Amino acid sequence: MAMTGVLRPGHAQIRVLDMEESVKFYTEVMGLVETGRDSSGRVYFKTRQERDHNSVVLRKSDRAGIDLFAFKVLDKATLEDLDQKLQAHGVKTERIPAGEMLETGERVRFQLPTGHTIELYAEKKDVGNGHGYVDPEVEVIEYKGISPIRMDHCLIYGGNIDGNLELFEKVLGFTLVERVKLEDGQTDLATWLTCSTKAHDIAMVRHGEDGKLHHVSFQLESWEQVLRAADIMSRNRVSIDIGPTRHGITQGTTIYFFDPSGNRLEVFCGGYDHYPDMHPITWSWEEVGRGIFYHDRKLNDAFLSVVT
Amino acid sequence: MAMTGVLRPGHAQIRVLDMEESVKFYTEVMGLVETGRDSSGRVYFKTRQERDHNSVVLRKSDRAGIDLFAFKVLDKATLEDLDQKLQAHGVKTERIPAGEMLETGERVRFQLPTGHTIELYAEKKDVGNGHGYVDPEVEVIEYKGISPIRMDHCLIYGGNIDGNLELFEKVLGFTLVERVKLEDGQTDLATWLTCSTKAHDIAMVRHGEDGKLHHVSFQLESWEQVLRAADIMSRNRVSIDIGPTRHGITQGTTIYFFDPSGNRLEVFCGGYDHYPDMHPITWSWEEVGRGIFYHDRKLNDAFLSVVT
Amino acid sequence: MAMTGVLRPGHAQIRVLDMEESVKFYTEVMGLVETGRDSSGRVYFKTRQERDHNSVVLRKSDRAGIDLFAFKVLDKATLEDLDQKLQAHGVKTERIPAGEMLETGERVRFQLPTGHTIELYAEKKDVGNGHGYVDPEVEVIEYKGISPIRMDHCLIYGGNIDGNLELFEKVLGFTLVERVKLEDGQTDLATWLTCSTKAHDIAMVRHGEDGKLHHVSFQLESWEQVLRAADIMSRNRVSIDIGPTRHGITQGTTIYFFDPSGNRLEVFCGGYDHYPDMHPITWSWEEVGRGIFYHDRKLNDAFLSVVT
Amino acid sequence: MAMTGVLRPGHAQIRVLDMEESVKFYTEVMGLVETGRDSSGRVYFKTRQERDHNSVVLRKSDRAGIDLFAFKVLDKATLEDLDQKLQAHGVKTERIPAGEMLETGERVRFQLPTGHTIELYAEKKDVGNGHGYVDPEVEVIEYKGISPIRMDHCLIYGGNIDGNLELFEKVLGFTLVERVKLEDGQTDLATWLTCSTKAHDIAMVRHGEDGKLHHVSFQLESWEQVLRAADIMSRNRVSIDIGPTRHGITQGTTIYFFDPSGNRLEVFCGGYDHYPDMHPITWSWEEVGRGIFYHDRKLNDAFLSVVT
Repeated sequence: MAMTGVLRPGHAQIRVLDMEESVKFYTEVMGLVETGRDSSGRVYFKTRQERDHNSVVLRKSDRAGIDLFAFKVLDKATLEDLDQKLQAHGVKTERIPAGEMLETGERVRFQLPTGHTIELYAEKKDVGNGHGYVDPEVEVIEYKGISPIRMDHCLIYGGNIDGNLELFEKVLGFTLVERVKLEDGQTDLATWLTCSTKAHDIAMVRHGEDGKLHHVSFQLESWEQVLRAADIMSRNRVSIDIGPTRHGITQGTTIYFFDPSGNRLEVFCGGYDHYPDMHPITWSWEEVGRGIFYHDRKLNDAFLSVVT
Repeated sequence: MAMTGVLRPGHAQIRVLDMEESVKFYTEVMGLVETGRDSSGRVYFKTRQERDHNSVVLRKSDRAGIDLFAFKVLDKATLEDLDQKLQAHGVKTERIPAGEMLETGERVRFQLPTGHTIELYAEKKDVGNGHGYVDPEVEVIEYKGISPIRMDHCLIYGGNIDGNLELFEKVLGFTLVERVKLEDGQTDLATWLTCSTKAHDIAMVRHGEDGKLHHVSFQLESWEQVLRAADIMSRNRVSIDIGPTRHGITQGTTIYFFDPSGNRLEVFCGGYDHYPDMHPITWSWEEVGRGIFYHDRKLNDAFLSVVT
Repeated sequence: MAMTGVLRPGHAQIRVLDMEESVKFYTEVMGLVETGRDSSGRVYFKTRQERDHNSVVLRKSDRAGIDLFAFKVLDKATLEDLDQKLQAHGVKTERIPAGEMLETGERVRFQLPTGHTIELYAEKKDVGNGHGYVDPEVEVIEYKGISPIRMDHCLIYGGNIDGNLELFEKVLGFTLVERVKLEDGQTDLATWLTCSTKAHDIAMVRHGEDGKLHHVSFQLESWEQVLRAADIMSRNRVSIDIGPTRHGITQGTTIYFFDPSGNRLEVFCGGYDHYPDMHPITWSWEEVGRGIFYHDRKLNDAFLSVVT
Repeated sequence: MAMTGVLRPGHAQIRVLDMEESVKFYTEVMGLVETGRDSSGRVYFKTRQERDHNSVVLRKSDRAGIDLFAFKVLDKATLEDLDQKLQAHGVKTERIPAGEMLETGERVRFQLPTGHTIELYAEKKDVGNGHGYVDPEVEVIEYKGISPIRMDHCLIYGGNIDGNLELFEKVLGFTLVERVKLEDGQTDLATWLTCSTKAHDIAMVRHGEDGKLHHVSFQLESWEQVLRAADIMSRNRVSIDIGPTRHGITQGTTIYFFDPSGNRLEVFCGGYDHYPDMHPITWSWEEVGRGIFYHDRKLNDAFLSVVT
């Protein structure tokens, strides 16, 4: 099988300060669909086009940020295999039983060298995208909110991103797509990695504090949908960090903005396909501004400092 | 590694009746870049954004059609492994030495049950896309012709598409993405398969004659680029089969048109991502018109009959 | 004042066979807003972005077609002036009192040489577009249906289009934008006229029978909205005549389709601006196919024959 | 005639510091076509789609800024009539003989109350857009540079914008489309005016110094072309002021950027149509940020201070 191992980002569990306000935001502004609530008070969402039961899980807390980010793997055998490989790499893993998260099978949980909690799982109930598997219709945007295609990737901040890179490449089979070097031309400031042919399934930036979230990202259909998203944000007075603009890195178009708890989110479109026979693209410290924001050609103040 | 085995379509060798006229068409109308000519008279092209040396090879002949369609695999070990698996499956394979095709390594060649020649290879020279791997710029369309992103897939016509499906799934690790059933609800009229997360890397339609080409397809950036392509075709009096329109199957937008030799080509944009944990979508005979052409909701006369 | 006299198309009264089915179509598929019903059973609609009370009026009848097409003029003085000019030109006019049509002032009604009923009026209640005139928001498509910007123009079929041209140019101050010549190179097959800077506010085709409607047209924001409209039509099994495609004439992109009574409608986007210092564009008979449908480069069977 | 009097912006004469560098910028980055040079050293340009000989004229100077902005009027009788009306309004006018500017007829020149030089003229040679008036093709972007549709409008800064408004409305027949009020709710900070159905043919902001230019603006086809323009700017290291973004005022999408002399230019797309029967939209001081930049919802530092 040409597409094996880790398939794609599956779910992100995000901490929010006010659940009612957050549910309103993730449904009416983001256009996600609420799919359930569990006994611990977590609220589950998926995009309209996703088939699996959930991709965003909100948990009420007194500080914003990300609890965990999970990847779906091909099957249960793959899950077992990756668990063993993680342990062989010296990573301590934990099993979270099926059902702890709604409609989700057993998960293998572990910590990244940057302190983030990552999970792998093989099973999540296919609740469908409303079109079925027989003679489907084309999806049309005829409803409230941004309505992204899918929860697509995240960017995390922490110290030991070299350790992360080694783990993702050697153990989980990810490929390095792009990297930014610091002034010394040697040390990575940031790396973008994929487990498929996307320009990124996860990315990370070197940072003084571990376990931090820069943003969770959602994919849009077109640059025109990026404009529609910005218009919806302004109509709803959502705090926009930057955009619409384009990244030099990945070449996607983008808006960074904040949920009501201050978690940064992204909607983006485009970006090239990366295959493992290609070389990674390297950005020098001098050009990092153009790499991150291709049109402004400089970092805004918030990019390297505001995380949750 | 999450992306293994067969990576993607690599090159299509297409027969043309008049080389000079064809070179003009593939450069000035299609916007491809000529990358070389070999001693046998074949002319090689790539898109501006492709990095490997060639993806389209034209060979002069007295009848149009496709000589062969090739896939790039991860590495030489994969090539050896797949060769053995093909033979174990009862497929006779042949080795084409490195250099027979410009800047291309050794190829494993075999026949599909539908009589088409398929090749696998691990090496083709990375001649770059003009942007390099360090601090690249974003590609901008500032030149003549359609300028697709890449040669993306093909649709072939032949008898034993069941045999093809078995070979692609069991031996080459492809996944079935969509299928159309005949009136009996059992027999496949057509199948769409992927070796990655694309909605299709190759597709096939059941047909009375073996070895036929329906179309070779090129990917565009956006629906607006589909319009631009149609405008360029009309300005150049290119024969358009159908479009701009949308496929129900894969949900991509599309134009079918003909090169000067009568080979059907496609430019398309979009289509959802397919992962191997998803079910294939099935189209009933009654809805095949909407499946193929979502807006017209009926096949045009040429779709099932005009092949080269 | 640089923009004087006749301003723009104001309302079209269209005959439908089944009012309930038609109201459902014009609201849920077209995305128009119902603004009222009068004592004679007519139902009034506007687009979401139009400010005047109505632009489409449906009347139940046993045959489809158009009762009348109306233009808004600058003010009451202009209405009086144009009435006198029409009479001086030998055109018999009739006054329809204010209130005969909901929220609409007095109308001057007359017959074109092609037998169509045209109206002029100066007053229609500004009921707003939901955004007001103070600190408005940007309109975002977050609801069901195609949701065009405005009712934009119509194309009528009849015999004496030369008489129409003279009347629109000499009496009503329209400008000829484009024309198609018959085989003789002299006679107009069709003409496109504007009272503003649009590529057309009304168009007409020479035809054996008077008083016929080819289509009423609605403007969309972008080519992507044209695709969305086609998708909505297919999801609702609306009969599409042709499209999405582009006109050579006016250069707009377009879909022709039919309401449940068989009246042809159009949604379109784009088209250049015409100013009265420019020359009209002339199409020869040999190139009329490309002029009407730029991508197909031939008329479809329905274009010259199917009218209501 | 429904479209009379002043038709549209015709030409802007812009001062540049280095002619060679400027010609390179306006051709290779802006994608304008050089149409001539006169004996005084001025260089003339038009867009590819404009038919009249020139719309941008560059003059070498030791300070940047705008020499004059001109409007084309319907015909010579209109020119005479407007000259008399200007004089009757107390405005001193001057005649610039035909030929002083290449391929341009006699001009009526006068000063606005804000100190800007405005010209009216009726004749400029139609050199065509390369498509002719018979059986034309659709324009396709297949060449270097941004390639706007037309020079569209300008925004000027000066003291007595109330005097400007009176002159444009009462003498030249313009209509007020939008206005921004200062904190007092009474005084205009800025006004947008049209002589056609565009959201603006000229705009003005109250400012301490007379005769200043904020920007000259060029129209693009689509939001995707706005992105292409931003990409071209970054590839060419053009200084971008802000964008891509959207204006709340006029609702157009936009990029502000600078030519090599520091003159601000704009490329924009969209904006609604305004007819003289509509009311002007008023923005309060509290919402001016959202009015100018709909997504950022605040003015950037440069908007009110950087002019040439």
